[in-house]
Amino acid sequence: MRATQFFLNTLKEAPADAEVISHQLMMRAGMIKRLAGGIYTYMPVGLRSIRKVENIVREEMNRAGALELLMPAVQPAELWQESGRWEKYGPELLRLKDRHDRDFVIGPTHEEVITDVVRKEVKSYRQLPLNLYQIQTKFRDEIRPRFGVMRGREFVMKDAYSFDRTQEAALKTYDVMYDAYRRIFTRLGLNFRAVNADTGSIGGNRSHEFHVIADTGEDAIAYCPSSDYAANVELAEAVCTAQRPAASKAIDKVHTPGNSTCEAVAAQLGLPLTATVKSVVFANEWLDKNETKPAKKVQIVLALVRGDHEVNDIKLGKLTGVQELRLATEAEIVAAFGTQPGYLGPVGLKGEVRVVADRSVAAMGDFVCGANAADYHYAGVNWGRDLPEPEVADIRNVVEGDPSPDGKGVLAMCRGIEVGHVFYLGTKYSEALQAKFLDENGKPAVIEMGCYGIGVTRILGAAIEQNFDDRGIIWPLSIAPFEVVLCPIGYKKSEEVKAQADKLYQMLEDAGVDVMLDDRDERPGVMFADWELIGVPLRVTLGDRGLKEGKVEFQSRDGKVEKRDVEVGEIFEQLRVELASRQVSL
Amino acid sequence: MRATQFFLNTLKEAPADAEVISHQLMMRAGMIKRLAGGIYTYMPVGLRSIRKVENIVREEMNRAGALELLMPAVQPAELWQESGRWEKYGPELLRLKDRHDRDFVIGPTHEEVITDVVRKEVKSYRQLPLNLYQIQTKFRDEIRPRFGVMRGREFVMKDAYSFDRTQEAALKTYDVMYDAYRRIFTRLGLNFRAVNADTGSIGGNRSHEFHVIADTGEDAIAYCPSSDYAANVELAEAVCTAQRPAASKAIDKVHTPGNSTCEAVAAQLGLPLTATVKSVVFANEWLDKNETKPAKKVQIVLALVRGDHEVNDIKLGKLTGVQELRLATEAEIVAAFGTQPGYLGPVGLKGEVRVVADRSVAAMGDFVCGANAADYHYAGVNWGRDLPEPEVADIRNVVEGDPSPDGKGVLAMCRGIEVGHVFYLGTKYSEALQAKFLDENGKPAVIEMGCYGIGVTRILGAAIEQNFDDRGIIWPLSIAPFEVVLCPIGYKKSEEVKAQADKLYQMLEDAGVDVMLDDRDERPGVMFADWELIGVPLRVTLGDRGLKEGKVEFQSRDGKVEKRDVEVGEIFEQLRVELASRQVSL
Repeated sequence: MRATQFFLNTLKEAPADAEVISHQLMMRAGMIKRLAGGIYTYMPVGLRSIRKVENIVREEMNRAGALELLMPAVQPAELWQESGRWEKYGPELLRLKDRHDRDFVIGPTHEEVITDVVRKEVKSYRQLPLNLYQIQTKFRDEIRPRFGVMRGREFVMKDAYSFDRTQEAALKTYDVMYDAYRRIFTRLGLNFRAVNADTGSIGGNRSHEFHVIADTGEDAIAYCPSSDYAANVELAEAVCTAQRPAASKAIDKVHTPGNSTCEAVAAQLGLPLTATVKSVVFANEWLDKNETKPAKKVQIVLALVRGDHEVNDIKLGKLTGVQELRLATEAEIVAAFGTQPGYLGPVGLKGEVRVVADRSVAAMGDFVCGANAADYHYAGVNWGRDLPEPEVADIRNVVEGDPSPDGKGVLAMCRGIEVGHVFYLGTKYSEALQAKFLDENGKPAVIEMGCYGIGVTRILGAAIEQNFDDRGIIWPLSIAPFEVVLCPIGYKKSEEVKAQADKLYQMLEDAGVDVMLDDRDERPGVMFADWELIGVPLRVTLGDRGLKEGKVEFQSRDGKVEKRDVEVGEIFEQLRVELASRQVSL
Repeated sequence: MRATQFFLNTLKEAPADAEVISHQLMMRAGMIKRLAGGIYTYMPVGLRSIRKVENIVREEMNRAGALELLMPAVQPAELWQESGRWEKYGPELLRLKDRHDRDFVIGPTHEEVITDVVRKEVKSYRQLPLNLYQIQTKFRDEIRPRFGVMRGREFVMKDAYSFDRTQEAALKTYDVMYDAYRRIFTRLGLNFRAVNADTGSIGGNRSHEFHVIADTGEDAIAYCPSSDYAANVELAEAVCTAQRPAASKAIDKVHTPGNSTCEAVAAQLGLPLTATVKSVVFANEWLDKNETKPAKKVQIVLALVRGDHEVNDIKLGKLTGVQELRLATEAEIVAAFGTQPGYLGPVGLKGEVRVVADRSVAAMGDFVCGANAADYHYAGVNWGRDLPEPEVADIRNVVEGDPSPDGKGVLAMCRGIEVGHVFYLGTKYSEALQAKFLDENGKPAVIEMGCYGIGVTRILGAAIEQNFDDRGIIWPLSIAPFEVVLCPIGYKKSEEVKAQADKLYQMLEDAGVDVMLDDRDERPGVMFADWELIGVPLRVTLGDRGLKEGKVEFQSRDGKVEKRDVEVGEIFEQLRVELASRQVSL
């Protein structure tokens, strides 16, 4: 491609609403153009990168045996009513009426449609397994779209849906998809982690998120640098290897006026924060249907974590008997503990409060906690002696340095951007939509499903968040809109420059390299700034001064090839080598 | 691809709502699956054909210098309000509100969005010309979607928009697109015509439709078999080469009781239908703003065509002074002619009626027409002698045998399916949205636009309407989901059959041929029926009986290669030759 035949429009400044670096750089590089909140036009330079992502995704999905189809964006409401999501899905589901006043949605996802297709097409076990995918435009009416393509409303997604005879087969398919995803993100040249994930609202009970690692990521990830273990911080298991020490102190009620936090009490007593216990009070609510008239019941739950830890209410919510969990009101706290928050603790409680201690708290001795009296704490508290043994569970967030749950080291923390997700769905949708098949014995059975998404447009943003500097984007070769840019200085003035640039351009084109020839005849500074902003991996500069000595200037955007002179006769080979070294082969 | 790893689901019967053959065959071949009225899922076999169409379109658009981008489906109402189409576009425009109650549409076309992009990006003449296209999903809320992909609501379209400095440059771009379209439809292997077309509601004044020729087409096309001339029947110029003969009879008032049609009168008088003149009365309405209070004015227009011709009200509507044309009411007719319809004519009229004669009527002598009295006609009528010379214009539909307007033969008729359209738009949208640039002299000028559409999914239906038989689809090679199908008889029973089929399959795969190996181990009849329905161009059947003599069976779906035995060692070469002969090179 020649620059004069392309559409380039770089900007010096990003618009004010571009909060994150990828949004700023995509706008400045002219990759996207805003049409409305969270709705963008993908300009030619941006679309080139999208197509490259799509092609890698498509190749690996095909290689994994999935078949591509294309489902409609506009879907009838009836299917969503059948699955129950017409009610459950919030205002992110864009609903509309056609001219005949019939209800439709613009698909934010396609479980309903694909399950409908399959229930109509699949009759026999002989037609299974089946794995169908599409690369298609989705719409989710985010309340606050932002971060450019990272949290847009209209976006391109690859979504796959698998159909198997048995759970065992479905989990095998899950593993095949998991491997395909690893290959996809590896080929895209991204630093990523497959993260154990909760299944959230979509349902199912086996799930991994694929995160691109970036300091600016929205999600906190706990991982083990010496193993494959990675999990969302909120879901990572907090392991406690410590043993409870024997009691060495007597219990002591200490006056701690105004010191209502663990930090303040620890400082006053000259103890480490790890010697204190934090009390957080929740209310567990449920409707008791055994009563003649169903009544709302509330149980107070006291969650205890070490002073340096944080309660994880997702984990707490999964404890047996917990229905609807919320923070307790001040009135509820005063009623249960006889005092205001700030000095609460597990000592001397009446039986109605359910006391749950984190594993690390259960392993503590001689600890400090609130005395359930204003301005007082207990020190030297010991389980069994001063208060009953508590219910023990993992109810805290992991922290850096915690043992890895796989026993292979300690946890580190990083931030990630979710770009892919694999779910084992089970029969959630096939049951709701009655997608069945006749098994080998002629008996009807419900199909086992999985679903697998990749945010195609989001990958662009994530790749940039991971790879940029103050001059612009640093694309991995596989996603770069162009692989090589030729910058001739004086293209329209020097015959020699033009001849050499045209010749090298033609050689690269013939070799199938995605090459851009900047024939705009701009000043070097303008050309360099544009291509560094756009992030083309390899650059060759051709000028009269160098060519007099038979040389051109070569450098790579990622800093691996620092600016250097190369013989004209050798530049093609050097480009070939550098391209090959950046190609990810599997 | 192997059949057992693919998703095949052919049907014996098409659903009852499939009225046309392409719809029936696409449903039966398992290419599409209905989700809602006019909304289809493209199944794997169907999507393969769509992708082939897309690739050819993309290659030729790129070759013509157009740049691909991707615009959103969901568009803000504001742009449509700016262009005026928010009001003008009917209920086909699917309107909706987002969660913040803001108005949006699902784009049926993208003139507004692209003009918005360009007005924001283009500042200088140096950035022009620009030709931007996308291959994207559109939605038009048809009142009665039908014919499968031929008149769907959600469909895939290639739409391009060009931006030029001057009208001259814009018309050059138009010609470039016209040529690209010819290449596209030629490469798709379709029998098509570029047809002169009215610009309809989108505006502009230069336009061609590209029609796939098929007997089942919705549009009637007049074309000249000995030249390139082709036009929509309603727009084709009706040329009259005849000279008016001298009068040879006296005018005669004839009693024609009950014979109120030209046919009946001609039969009664023993004259050819071509000796009669048909009278059709219209009313031309307008608001006279010269009056102190604007008043509605009506002028009666008597349109005269030969008895065997039909009035063309589009042509009539374009005559000078004609504002709003409609058929006259019976009351208006009685008031102007003094009699009921059936016996109307141009003789003895008062001055208020505007008499317009078709060119062929002006060339008649001794003709027959109504006498403006019930049950009476005039015979032997001659212009100038019996009534004043009329206003002469082309106001009829052309018929088979009319002289071609380009003077290169006579017109023939065919039917077509519109699959592409090129428009010169002028400044319709750029004026409305104020898309301007600074010209060479630093003066602002409005950008000249063109737009160019291709119905990607519709092409599938049109190709089938043109190419089918009672067994199914007969794809042109370029659109076929698979190019070659191998049908081994007893794949799982005969080692020799399996070995030879696998070997040929691998050779073809390695050669880049799109080959399907039917490894389902079905009976030959089942396999043949499926692949003939799906329409794969070339078929090789491998069975034990033939292989014993070193032979396989070869035939083509289009009948050019009739079933014949071929040496196993020669089949690859024969396939290569037949594939090459079906490849359209330009």
